Amino acid sequence: MDCEIISIGDELLIGQVTNTNASWMASEFSASGIVVRRITTVPDDTEDIINAIQSALEKNKLVVLSGGLGPTKDDMTKEALCIYFNVSLFLHQPTLDHIERLFGGRGIPVLQKNRDQALIPENAIPLTNIHGTAPGLWFEQDGKIIVSLPGVPYELKALVTESVIPRLVESQQLATFFHRTILTQGMGESLLSERISRWEDNLPVNIKLAYLPQPGLVRLRISAHGTDRNLVIQEIDEQVSRLEELIPELVFGYDNDTLESVVGEMLVKSGRTLATAESCTGGYLAHLITSVPGSSRYYKGSIISYDNSIKEGLLGVNKDSLVKYGAVSDVVVKQMAESARKKFNSDYALATSGIAGPGGGTPDKPVGLVFVALAGPGETVISKYTFGEHRGRNIRRSSLAALNMLRLELYRLLSLGDKGING
Amino acid sequence: MDCEIISIGDELLIGQVTNTNASWMASEFSASGIVVRRITTVPDDTEDIINAIQSALEKNKLVVLSGGLGPTKDDMTKEALCIYFNVSLFLHQPTLDHIERLFGGRGIPVLQKNRDQALIPENAIPLTNIHGTAPGLWFEQDGKIIVSLPGVPYELKALVTESVIPRLVESQQLATFFHRTILTQGMGESLLSERISRWEDNLPVNIKLAYLPQPGLVRLRISAHGTDRNLVIQEIDEQVSRLEELIPELVFGYDNDTLESVVGEMLVKSGRTLATAESCTGGYLAHLITSVPGSSRYYKGSIISYDNSIKEGLLGVNKDSLVKYGAVSDVVVKQMAESARKKFNSDYALATSGIAGPGGGTPDKPVGLVFVALAGPGETVISKYTFGEHRGRNIRRSSLAALNMLRLELYRLLSLGDKGING
Repeated sequence: MDCEIISIGDELLIGQVTNTNASWMASEFSASGIVVRRITTVPDDTEDIINAIQSALEKNKLVVLSGGLGPTKDDMTKEALCIYFNVSLFLHQPTLDHIERLFGGRGIPVLQKNRDQALIPENAIPLTNIHGTAPGLWFEQDGKIIVSLPGVPYELKALVTESVIPRLVESQQLATFFHRTILTQGMGESLLSERISRWEDNLPVNIKLAYLPQPGLVRLRISAHGTDRNLVIQEIDEQVSRLEELIPELVFGYDNDTLESVVGEMLVKSGRTLATAESCTGGYLAHLITSVPGSSRYYKGSIISYDNSIKEGLLGVNKDSLVKYGAVSDVVVKQMAESARKKFNSDYALATSGIAGPGGGTPDKPVGLVFVALAGPGETVISKYTFGEHRGRNIRRSSLAALNMLRLELYRLLSLGDKGING
Repeated sequence: MDCEIISIGDELLIGQVTNTNASWMASEFSASGIVVRRITTVPDDTEDIINAIQSALEKNKLVVLSGGLGPTKDDMTKEALCIYFNVSLFLHQPTLDHIERLFGGRGIPVLQKNRDQALIPENAIPLTNIHGTAPGLWFEQDGKIIVSLPGVPYELKALVTESVIPRLVESQQLATFFHRTILTQGMGESLLSERISRWEDNLPVNIKLAYLPQPGLVRLRISAHGTDRNLVIQEIDEQVSRLEELIPELVFGYDNDTLESVVGEMLVKSGRTLATAESCTGGYLAHLITSVPGSSRYYKGSIISYDNSIKEGLLGVNKDSLVKYGAVSDVVVKQMAESARKKFNSDYALATSGIAGPGGGTPDKPVGLVFVALAGPGETVISKYTFGEHRGRNIRRSSLAALNMLRLELYRLLSLGDKGING
């Protein structure tokens, strides 16, 4: 099934917003066996939108529009669709009820322009937008499908995942295409590819491997085409097993897992609790941990000692150590972790101290130098990292490195052997 | 000068790579007065590339291609350009010399496929690629300009900045286009548009307004076309001033500012320090604050009391208050802020307590209920919010709400009147 994505919005054409919606949809559609033939970005202009729809329908069975469905005057997509199909708007009562419930729940008055979002083209099937007021719109004409979605990323994602793809799967004979993503942490892309090169070279022709590196981790996507769905899944599973045997300690999860969710599950499984003491990561490690729903079951809290006096005061780090070794040192990070473990009365504590940059580096302690400590019932483990010069990435990589230290510890504790944490 | 960007690459159409080149170029071009009318992404396919060039030239004076100039078999752009212009390749000796110097400097042998990158269409003017082997290609035909650039982001950026834009500025009368983004916090898109509707309706025809909502804030982009650059800038400035008079307390910055960077500047300017005590935001507020380089000048640290016992122990919240009112209450959040201010010896302290969800809600205290307190030299201010059901957005909106409370306080402190923080 061939598809064109049409992204609508002036903000995309002046480069104010990067078109992540299009790449996300392209990835989701590809995974469902839909071939995205073209992505076109046009302004909030009725004529441009209509021309783009016409051109896209010439070559594709499916056309997906995103953006321009909001309540304000610059949103032109609904008008363009009405002109294109030569139809009028009608009030869709269930959508209006949904809008009023949404606003009522937040205690905000419903304005006329919000109510107007329940006006939809008369030939459209509305797709409920659980997170917002503008419904998705589904049109069928001459055997082709046109879908119009709001541009707010989380609204669009929910609509694609929960409405658009299920409807396409239901109504169409989508070719069999399947992929699985293996998440690894602890080795860079180049070294990793050396280590698995033999396996990669021997992959069957219908199976493809892609490296998707992100700061601090590398995702490996294995995808396969075929005619028999069960066979394709079986083939992928076999290759995933072989891959895991090569890098058991690097694999931490699959597909939509995150390091923080995997560590959270392991803490629950092992009945252990965690606290943190953060310096250079400045709360980001705590944020990752608490972004997991239910993290209050195992996470006690954190002391963020951004100022050195706090390391001494609240965390009880030895003053002499701070003077002698400096805040960014193995000695201090060890004390931070051990002190946090005591103060929070937790089974484990992670601590970070480093130079996130861009300022603050010295020849001895350059930007990117980070110490991470894990205190637990046994001996405190300390790791030293030398990351790069980018503040945001240093913060993220330090936090992921800390979580990965705990993951390896819990992996040993749970004695899962070499089959990976989901094995 | 109207322009279309054509991005070439299969990896863009399966969503493996987000098209940051296009948004970066769009932003650079807009800033130079070039109007990007469309961005089209096509696969590494000769026919698709030729069709895209033809269609783009129908409506635009400038067409910029990126990608597909590499040395491997899947790079088709040069072939497509030769077919389109009906020309052959010739060896451009200075480019070959450049390639051999590049490889020599890295001590890598030059392969034939690398040498072949010095073969360029005979009607092309090569643009030296200082960072790589594939030169940019500049074509002129029938008063139109076609530019082809390599897809490697830093090679492309250098070519655009150092060759393409200077050449365009030199050779063309670039039309004047200018835009400014006003950042607001504290009111949703719909209510905001009601409040400024009269101003919006009276905008001159050459000025456009766009709403760019994000969780927790709304960006307003004002853009204008014109023939006289100074006049256009003056017109925009006038409209920005009028807008600010309508919503002085909502505007927190411009263009690439963030709430955390603006608050940081205000703290530096006022010589004040800050600490935080976080419950429901779980470190995200601290992370926002510390994501700003140099935040150690004003930020002392945080206690994240995810577990109630920590609120009592480390933060010294009254046990009776916790029992009587619960952790999510105005009474407790006030004590958290005041205690953090004392423990960290800071001028201000922000505290958050709420139910981020998805679990943990009750009829009295539903998911999305959040209390934020700001303790300072004066009386502690407490705000109550009712956000939505999405954990991640509740965390972000709570953190932004907290920063905004501090911004308003510092705004008063710095006595900037009603002209906005940059006024």
